[in-house]
Amino acid sequence: MVRLTARTRVHTFGPEGEIRARADKLAGEEPLEVQLDGEQFTVTMRTPGHDVEMVLGFLLAEGVLTSADQVREIDFSSGLDPDGRRNYNVAKVSLRPGTFDPAAYGERKVYTSSACGICGTASIEEVRKTSAFPLFAPLTGMPFVSPATVLSLPDRLRDAQSLFDSTGGSHAAGLFRVPSDAVAEPELLVVREDVGRHNAVDKVLGWALQQGLLPLSGTVIQVSGRASFELVQKAGMAGIPVLSAVSAPSSLAVELGRDTNVTVIGFNRGKTFNAYSHPERIG
Amino acid sequence: MVRLTARTRVHTFGPEGEIRARADKLAGEEPLEVQLDGEQFTVTMRTPGHDVEMVLGFLLAEGVLTSADQVREIDFSSGLDPDGRRNYNVAKVSLRPGTFDPAAYGERKVYTSSACGICGTASIEEVRKTSAFPLFAPLTGMPFVSPATVLSLPDRLRDAQSLFDSTGGSHAAGLFRVPSDAVAEPELLVVREDVGRHNAVDKVLGWALQQGLLPLSGTVIQVSGRASFELVQKAGMAGIPVLSAVSAPSSLAVELGRDTNVTVIGFNRGKTFNAYSHPERIG
Repeated sequence: MVRLTARTRVHTFGPEGEIRARADKLAGEEPLEVQLDGEQFTVTMRTPGHDVEMVLGFLLAEGVLTSADQVREIDFSSGLDPDGRRNYNVAKVSLRPGTFDPAAYGERKVYTSSACGICGTASIEEVRKTSAFPLFAPLTGMPFVSPATVLSLPDRLRDAQSLFDSTGGSHAAGLFRVPSDAVAEPELLVVREDVGRHNAVDKVLGWALQQGLLPLSGTVIQVSGRASFELVQKAGMAGIPVLSAVSAPSSLAVELGRDTNVTVIGFNRGKTFNAYSHPERIG
Repeated sequence: MVRLTARTRVHTFGPEGEIRARADKLAGEEPLEVQLDGEQFTVTMRTPGHDVEMVLGFLLAEGVLTSADQVREIDFSSGLDPDGRRNYNVAKVSLRPGTFDPAAYGERKVYTSSACGICGTASIEEVRKTSAFPLFAPLTGMPFVSPATVLSLPDRLRDAQSLFDSTGGSHAAGLFRVPSDAVAEPELLVVREDVGRHNAVDKVLGWALQQGLLPLSGTVIQVSGRASFELVQKAGMAGIPVLSAVSAPSSLAVELGRDTNVTVIGFNRGKTFNAYSHPERIG
């Protein structure tokens, strides 16, 4: 069983042959099975650590719950390695009565967990419907975040990526609170890292849920890689108005951002960035 | 409906404010639902194009089929946009009788489609069991691929990434055949691009399945991003002995490579690369 990092032996080669063999660290990756009131709900590959946050954030993003109080217990005791040792890779979630109706969730599941059954448009409708929060305050005439602030976020996130420092192989998500005067430095509320980009975002959402901070108006979430459809959906479900990515968004991520009022920023690297939806929040 | 690329309007900002607004291209992303003999099998977000290959490659990697002949028909006619136009986002696969037993597949599904229900070790056992091909020829004393050849693959892949050229936002997988003398240049057999790394690999596998090339001994697959557990699994299921990634592997990817006899290469960029499993194939 590995945890946050795993030690490994690595052979480094140059054009002429092997240069050296040495010990190295890899980002940990283990499966986590989430059971909801006794039924398997999902299995995901994640970097162990902050697992309670990840489960809470995932369930928030899936529309299962809107408050940490709705969870009675998360029991990690039943996951066992073949040698009988606990591995904490099964999370049994018990919800308080009335929180979740599996019957009503049935047809929604396909949409939110694996995107959409038929087409992007239907999915977007579904995501909009399932959000338990009012989808963001109406845009005002005033800019919400300055371009210079947006440009500063990737470096601030990078400075906080300890797992990436030791492995070079993990994604990160950082949640920043933007001061209302839009001039002071934004406050970095939390950073989470994971081999999976979506898991890092789930861990951030779960942290915010535990802190009672939802909906997350007045914040920007910065992610290390691309902006996928799923990340925009997660931002939307948590009420985060701005999602900023270092790399490109996909077409559906942009479409979803436009329709659900999330500002989607991409190619935020160096001296410029692109806004693909709702650029009115920047200025 | 978007296809391979989608045009969009983008606002580019610098530190002082908006610099320009212009038209830009994004990598297309749409859902694809795969039905197997009338039952929903999976829904995935993918870049449209080479969809038959993707479906075939995915079914190969999932252990459902081992030959393109086992498919009677793939019908894309039932997917409709809300306005009634065909969107080709539903693939109804009919298999020849005897190809696939859903009952026997039941317990395997959790493992291969979403990794493992309990732990990495169990999953690895499961993957090893489910491969329909002998898992690679035994290693011989002779090197299989030279370090210089490995180092040349990322640039050769990059040169063939037309979708990345126009969008900057897609992954790629390229399959190379290594000449038996290990001196001549490897032949690039096929390149596929997608917003999802795993989809790009599925499209490559499906292409090879259609060409009757499996198992893919004597080949290396080069991918543009990280080496995840799933990619090593897909390589293993297709009999590809070497998986090379530009970025880091995860711990489980390395573990699976060791156990299933796949050489996992990471950080293949510039003048060196790392081999994390079975370095005997390089020299």
